[in-house]
Amino acid sequence: MSRVRILFIVMAALAAVNVHAATRPAKVAVCTACHGPELNGGKGMYPRIAGQPEAFIYLQLQNFKRGIRKNPLMSPVASGLSDAEMRQLAAYISTLHPPFAKQTAAKPTAGVLARGRELVTVGNWSRGVPACDSCHAPDLEGVAPSIPSLAGQPEQYLSGALQRLTSTTDKSLPAATMHKVANGLSSDDIKAVAAYIGSLKQGERVSAVRPAFDKAYRPVAQSPDKFTPPPLSAIPEGPNGDAIWQGLRLMQHTRALAPKYVGNDLNCVNCHINQGRRGTSAPMWAAYVMYPHYRSKNKQINTIEKRIQGCFRFSMNGTPPPADSPEMTALVTYFHWLATGLPVGIKPKQSGYPKLVAPAQEPSITRGSKVYAANCAMCHGADGHGRTARGAQVFPPLWGPRSYNNGAGMHRPGMAAAFIHANMPYADGRQMTVQEAWDVAAFVDSHSRPPDPRKKKQAGK
Amino acid sequence: MSRVRILFIVMAALAAVNVHAATRPAKVAVCTACHGPELNGGKGMYPRIAGQPEAFIYLQLQNFKRGIRKNPLMSPVASGLSDAEMRQLAAYISTLHPPFAKQTAAKPTAGVLARGRELVTVGNWSRGVPACDSCHAPDLEGVAPSIPSLAGQPEQYLSGALQRLTSTTDKSLPAATMHKVANGLSSDDIKAVAAYIGSLKQGERVSAVRPAFDKAYRPVAQSPDKFTPPPLSAIPEGPNGDAIWQGLRLMQHTRALAPKYVGNDLNCVNCHINQGRRGTSAPMWAAYVMYPHYRSKNKQINTIEKRIQGCFRFSMNGTPPPADSPEMTALVTYFHWLATGLPVGIKPKQSGYPKLVAPAQEPSITRGSKVYAANCAMCHGADGHGRTARGAQVFPPLWGPRSYNNGAGMHRPGMAAAFIHANMPYADGRQMTVQEAWDVAAFVDSHSRPPDPRKKKQAGK
Repeated sequence: MSRVRILFIVMAALAAVNVHAATRPAKVAVCTACHGPELNGGKGMYPRIAGQPEAFIYLQLQNFKRGIRKNPLMSPVASGLSDAEMRQLAAYISTLHPPFAKQTAAKPTAGVLARGRELVTVGNWSRGVPACDSCHAPDLEGVAPSIPSLAGQPEQYLSGALQRLTSTTDKSLPAATMHKVANGLSSDDIKAVAAYIGSLKQGERVSAVRPAFDKAYRPVAQSPDKFTPPPLSAIPEGPNGDAIWQGLRLMQHTRALAPKYVGNDLNCVNCHINQGRRGTSAPMWAAYVMYPHYRSKNKQINTIEKRIQGCFRFSMNGTPPPADSPEMTALVTYFHWLATGLPVGIKPKQSGYPKLVAPAQEPSITRGSKVYAANCAMCHGADGHGRTARGAQVFPPLWGPRSYNNGAGMHRPGMAAAFIHANMPYADGRQMTVQEAWDVAAFVDSHSRPPDPRKKKQAGK
Repeated sequence: MSRVRILFIVMAALAAVNVHAATRPAKVAVCTACHGPELNGGKGMYPRIAGQPEAFIYLQLQNFKRGIRKNPLMSPVASGLSDAEMRQLAAYISTLHPPFAKQTAAKPTAGVLARGRELVTVGNWSRGVPACDSCHAPDLEGVAPSIPSLAGQPEQYLSGALQRLTSTTDKSLPAATMHKVANGLSSDDIKAVAAYIGSLKQGERVSAVRPAFDKAYRPVAQSPDKFTPPPLSAIPEGPNGDAIWQGLRLMQHTRALAPKYVGNDLNCVNCHINQGRRGTSAPMWAAYVMYPHYRSKNKQINTIEKRIQGCFRFSMNGTPPPADSPEMTALVTYFHWLATGLPVGIKPKQSGYPKLVAPAQEPSITRGSKVYAANCAMCHGADGHGRTARGAQVFPPLWGPRSYNNGAGMHRPGMAAAFIHANMPYADGRQMTVQEAWDVAAFVDSHSRPPDPRKKKQAGK
């Protein structure tokens, strides 16, 4: 008997003991055979399935049965399951939260871990690779209903899955996105990502761990036509680095870390994708070098602080932090660092959102609703209220009382359409047409949201 | 008879009528012959001497008599004057304030005037040329006792004087400085400076007139190793330019324009020479790209605003303007503009004051007092209280109740010595030795000045 077969038999026997018999569907025993008695991942290539989102598990079983996903072990198993059995298994397995399985892979080098960490938390947008944690939740715990957890997966499974995705023919949205992502990773990148995620301890806060400073880092002057912000490993030790790191965390977890200033469920990174780095998404480095500057919106010179205050008032529907508050200082320190090497006062080629041409047809809310259902609802929800993981917002609400208010730039259909066309669906799984972007912007904008605080003020007079 | 001789006779006749007879020394008639009936400048090459500082007039007469200054007309005149007559003439002439004489020179082109204006108000420090208005007072009205007025001088006289200074052998301090300045000007520069000053209307506020925007200006990325801030003609029209200009004016006339924040008689440009441009004098462009940054002085991250607040508290012995005040916004807008093209976050080669080596001998207050008398007293006064023109401070007080306080960086002898060695005497008429810089810094620092506000606070507890 092969080693795999022996393992199968041993694991199946153990499964009957470890999984709580009273609530489990009978077919779970088939799963435990490979995925481990607690479904927290077998040795090597077998993923942890416990606690994955119900809809995600169900979809994968369907995909195996329909041949959309091919696997010599899973395809026959899924073929033998009825739709009802799949639903029962998905419902049950999604409720399980066993400890992480013991990792069997060899300990990776510090260099590999650092590279993996940078890819997981920053990505490599020059090759179309977003940060893993921007969709899979800040600590890679996954986002119901459709984004799986990566935390707790074995290294071998992760690298295999990424390799498989490089050649998938599945054109549906999450698979298409991951196909593009996987093809943006070199084989060394895939190894590094898998090694880093595989090394995570249970409960490890991926987004809260500051990377080690790379003492070899030297800033260089760069062209405003082609700019790359410094890597996370360029954050120095000491108080300057502390402030940079604090600013970055505020960008990502604005609501959680600055609750008194945020009046909705948005974080800075919702409009300023990839930690404010992404060139097509109003990058903070481009803004940093162009302020102070006059804005017709408030008819005055805006320092970078005043400009940020505008975001808090409108996009965050909140109370602007004072210009000399610790939160503002941290944000400005982070933006200054992000702009390292960029010339002051010369408008970078990438700045704001790329200008979008006018649509051929008048934007249509009806057409936009269909674009939304096909491209946006998976993450932002059919109700537009976004998605959370462990109570923290991962995908932002696009309308309703917890979204940006009517005074925000994103409320203008032209700006929303430009943002969407350049950046959505996230990570360029596929790009919308100009018309689709205008239509879906009109649809999003057709919903109610908090009032413009300037008009409230006038009304109160 | 030559035309000059005819003129001499006519002018001498008129002089008796125009100069108030009751108070004028008899020998004034000799002066009016060439310098005009009101001593406000004869035609062409004859300077306006009315209203020049008394000590300046007396010194020039002495120089002519002694042959230190050579002139075919003035040398014989001065040789015929006794010391008492020179004193009487100087005392009398310095009290006269007649209107500007009518200019006879052809109207210069706009390009020549713009070039002259830039040299007069910004200078060309790469060739050792300071702005004329930094010593001759903001509106070129001169500073008693020793800096002559330039306003009202005929173009031909000014260009002749600058030409003469290129070959002067006078090694005394103001002449030595002007010798270096004149040699830093090309012959076209001299023509432009003379044409611009010669074109000034009576009472024209040189420092208050914003130069025309040069539409051909394009910012370029520059190296942090060799940086040149933009010319004044790069200040754009509209609200951004208004704020830049306001910030520049605040730098120069801090006390006058922001009296509620300044507690002494200093202006920003006293420590940040040449409008904050000069590379050896804590240039504002270098500071701008390095903040936010941690400072051990206040044990926190300092945004550029907080750093500026430190200047107001210590160097200006005042009350810091709030981070979001109009004054602060204007200053930051100006610094941002001044740094145009400089990469963010890379320490420029020139930053702060150049580090000065330790002195060979322990700094001596006694030796320093002699260095001070020979090099500093002319502008800062024997009493260290500086000099004013029309009530506005031109040369800053170095000690006493109207100078920086004990908490200012300049109070540390090492910093003062570094500043002095790199920048004083102003415009590099001659450079001090390392020992002289340390000695004179010790002397300056040996005087009393306002207390450190942090210690006052502690004492009050």
